[in-house]
Amino acid sequence: MSLKSLMTTYQQRIEAALESWLPAPEIQPSRLHQAMRYAVQGGGKRVRPLLVYLTGNTLNLNPANLDAPACAVEFIHAFSLVHDDLPAMDDDDLRRGKPTCHKAFDEATAILAGDALQSLAFYALSHDPNLQTTDKQRLKMIETLAQASGSRGMAGGQVIDMDSAGQSLNIVELENMHIHKTGALIRASVKLGALAYPSIDDNLLKKLDHYAKCIGLAFQIQDDILDIESDTKTLGKLQGSDIANDKVTYPALLGLRGAKKMANELVEDAIKSLSDFDQKAEPLRWMANYIVTRNY
Amino acid sequence: MSLKSLMTTYQQRIEAALESWLPAPEIQPSRLHQAMRYAVQGGGKRVRPLLVYLTGNTLNLNPANLDAPACAVEFIHAFSLVHDDLPAMDDDDLRRGKPTCHKAFDEATAILAGDALQSLAFYALSHDPNLQTTDKQRLKMIETLAQASGSRGMAGGQVIDMDSAGQSLNIVELENMHIHKTGALIRASVKLGALAYPSIDDNLLKKLDHYAKCIGLAFQIQDDILDIESDTKTLGKLQGSDIANDKVTYPALLGLRGAKKMANELVEDAIKSLSDFDQKAEPLRWMANYIVTRNY
Repeated sequence: MSLKSLMTTYQQRIEAALESWLPAPEIQPSRLHQAMRYAVQGGGKRVRPLLVYLTGNTLNLNPANLDAPACAVEFIHAFSLVHDDLPAMDDDDLRRGKPTCHKAFDEATAILAGDALQSLAFYALSHDPNLQTTDKQRLKMIETLAQASGSRGMAGGQVIDMDSAGQSLNIVELENMHIHKTGALIRASVKLGALAYPSIDDNLLKKLDHYAKCIGLAFQIQDDILDIESDTKTLGKLQGSDIANDKVTYPALLGLRGAKKMANELVEDAIKSLSDFDQKAEPLRWMANYIVTRNY
Repeated sequence: MSLKSLMTTYQQRIEAALESWLPAPEIQPSRLHQAMRYAVQGGGKRVRPLLVYLTGNTLNLNPANLDAPACAVEFIHAFSLVHDDLPAMDDDDLRRGKPTCHKAFDEATAILAGDALQSLAFYALSHDPNLQTTDKQRLKMIETLAQASGSRGMAGGQVIDMDSAGQSLNIVELENMHIHKTGALIRASVKLGALAYPSIDDNLLKKLDHYAKCIGLAFQIQDDILDIESDTKTLGKLQGSDIANDKVTYPALLGLRGAKKMANELVEDAIKSLSDFDQKAEPLRWMANYIVTRNY
């Protein structure tokens, strides 16, 4: 299968898998289920679930083993966006070109939809009968995702981000924030894909994790670059909002050129750490490049 | 061991176990960790973790098998209180006689502390090395808790509750709301205690579940009664707030006497469903009675 058709296959697979876990809109409480669906559906690059599938692809896994972990990381991602957009946090009106969840529904429903999406992530991982890995590995997946979402992962990163508004962070502090805020979940995505393999070798797991760490940071740097170089329509959210919100960014610290250089070096490093893997890792290499060349 | 000293032992055990899972306040991000600790510590009757321990006690389990599930249900409970108290939801200033989390900290921190407490619940269940049940049963615990917390459990119940403000619910609709809002987590508490037993008999599990269903509803009815009969100081929250918020309650539908009768009948039913269990279930029977005789 060509890279392009492989990606299309996985993209379609993700949407179908997400749909299969989301409660139908007519099931009570209907408004909550509509809000959960709204938060997950209609857009998004699906970078995290793609990483789950592509990591599993590298290890020759049947994709049926990857549906639940792919959905779980996307549910966590979607929930975090809904909560981050709330008035008490980033107070954003626009997400993926549409009103944010609390604008389309209301604040209370958005908070609860986020909460329920987090629960759904762990439900999918613990329940899915198609996931064929060992129970031990499945528990490890849950542990990994819980840690990545929690106070020393994603939630912690959002606190550091909010506390840093208007502060002058240095490059180490900025990196620390992003390692938590976006990096933790991206690393978890690759790790979950690897844990779907019943007996993953520790050394290979380390290499995949290094890959994930590098692309996670590169992803964030590219986000910062796009906030300057792209436009609101392409981004689906307000361009220039980092500057407007007085946020420290990589281009602000390193200049636009320095930031691009750093992102490219991280991608090179990521690809280098896949050198033990064969042709099956090609989509992961492509993904690393995509992360710094994407325009939204 | 007398019932009284057994309860004291478990009470102390719960506090120590919760402390062992909560991140230390000095660990970064410190403010988030302080908010998580604030939400969990200092008060609360610990009804849900007690139910985990007492169910395990009934099945002769070593309490080391019950620490993680007991903490997990309390983390979920604490997170739900933090989110329910938010201005966008019930907008409460007082909880257990102290300022609510968003009053003591701020809204954003309270939202994230709740989110991180939910993650911590699943981390504890998946990670705890002292939990000696099978991996299969542990996964079942996670599945049970995720389902109880999600859109068709606790989060769904809160939506139904909010939507019902100012509406005239009948007794079936009121029961449906409470089965979700408080009942789901109380049932999950008993089920998690039972699942700590490596090979729980389905019939016994059903009887324990019926017990839990009955006391969950009785608990809510007693809450409604206390909102009328108790005072703000004893309750630790504003007395009369149900009437002030135009909420449908059992006393409003059945009269105070009718509500008390219903609560007592549910407790009788709960105790009856424990008839297959021996003396070891005595604390569970005591708990059922406590639920309708407590004054806060």
